[in-house]
Amino acid sequence: MRISARNQVAGTVAKLTVGVVNAEVVISLPGGGQLVAVITKGSAKTLNLKRGSPVVAIIKSSDVLVAVPCGNPDCKCR
Amino acid sequence: MRISARNQVAGTVAKLTVGVVNAEVVISLPGGGQLVAVITKGSAKTLNLKRGSPVVAIIKSSDVLVAVPCGNPDCKCR
Amino acid sequence: MRISARNQVAGTVAKLTVGVVNAEVVISLPGGGQLVAVITKGSAKTLNLKRGSPVVAIIKSSDVLVAVPCGNPDCKCR
Amino acid sequence: MRISARNQVAGTVAKLTVGVVNAEVVISLPGGGQLVAVITKGSAKTLNLKRGSPVVAIIKSSDVLVAVPCGNPDCKCR
Amino acid sequence: MRISARNQVAGTVAKLTVGVVNAEVVISLPGGGQLVAVITKGSAKTLNLKRGSPVVAIIKSSDVLVAVPCGNPDCKCR
Amino acid sequence: MRISARNQVAGTVAKLTVGVVNAEVVISLPGGGQLVAVITKGSAKTLNLKRGSPVVAIIKSSDVLVAVPCGNPDCKCR
Repeated sequence: MRISARNQVAGTVAKLTVGVVNAEVVISLPGGGQLVAVITKGSAKTLNLKRGSPVVAIIKSSDVLVAVPCGNPDCKCR
Repeated sequence: MRISARNQVAGTVAKLTVGVVNAEVVISLPGGGQLVAVITKGSAKTLNLKRGSPVVAIIKSSDVLVAVPCGNPDCKCR
Repeated sequence: MRISARNQVAGTVAKLTVGVVNAEVVISLPGGGQLVAVITKGSAKTLNLKRGSPVVAIIKSSDVLVAVPCGNPDCKCR
Repeated sequence: MRISARNQVAGTVAKLTVGVVNAEVVISLPGGGQLVAVITKGSAKTLNLKRGSPVVAIIKSSDVLVAVPCGNPDCKCR
Repeated sequence: MRISARNQVAGTVAKLTVGVVNAEVVISLPGGGQLVAVITKGSAKTLNLKRGSPVVAIIKSSDVLVAVPCGNPDCKCR
Repeated sequence: MRISARNQVAGTVAKLTVGVVNAEVVISLPGGGQLVAVITKGSAKTLNLKRGSPVVAIIKSSDVLVAVPCGNPDCKCR
């Protein structure tokens, strides 16, 4: 299956936290960064996710916000 | 302002396509990848986005889907 | 109230799983399929959802992704 | 690729409307209903969507809202 | 129809900008603020939206991000 | 950091409910209304949210649905 989402980032499950309804998946990226996904517990189970599983994070472009740093270079308030 | 979104990725505007209502922002990442955001034309204007602008892509973790590669190593159907 | 969402599908609550913050609602469709919604526990309570409740699943069109099957007909990796 | 989204509905592209940034995809379902997706024009092109293309609509469960009909059976205000 | 979304804010259409696929709806709130919605052109037409139409903005709570002001009171970089 | 989201509403945390994965944040608005956000437990912790914290609710315009009241003025079925 090929999917319309413009953002597809490969990584590895670094941590999985499972609640009653949802599960938080922390994904380590090859470059050293991380992405966090919240999916249903049911999906985490169906996909058989565990620490170390290779995964692809998929993000629809309409779900990406854009921010710009402050004009003031002294401003650290990110 | 610090924001709750768990995913914040810094990059540079590589391409901006402006429609009547929305604008597509292609963001180059330092590591070589890209992210695509669709925001309103009004926001692109307010933020004064242009090719080369430093930006941060922000993604709420509940908007990230997770996929796993097929079990079959011969499968190329991503 | 009439709502802008282009996707409105009537069904019946088949299963309700309630967590601390969210609730998962499995909705059976007349044709035999299912949809799954995650809403807040508070909403599930306010709407008085239970097994058998008639409901309408509502989905904004910007939240629908599109995928195409692999070109290879032997590929089963959905 | 197998994906975490709990809602995956197969259908056929019935109509494609392409704007500057986005494209609207009307998907006919086997049972007779329709779903509408808005994706980027770039994705529609990459997936080579046209009238008649077989597709799968994918919806994350956290993007599904639930409504209940009015208590008053005489109320028609959906 | 009663809907699960926890955030429902009544207002009036102040401005409508219609593109090929989407429409931007600026909604004036009684208190003096504004909300902006992007829906499909088709929905705007079906709902017969025009300047002055009374509307309700509906937002699922999982689509609301939270930010906090900078710790530094001199920081103006919102 | 300035962010592209068109909807940014200042308020105060009125109630915080923390689950295993997510947290529900009820935000009181100056005008007397409320907004509800669901974010990750991790974000709530990072932002150090508590009852009384000043916050800004941020909503992307593509996540706002629009509804119109029923044509029938006697209809109360919101």
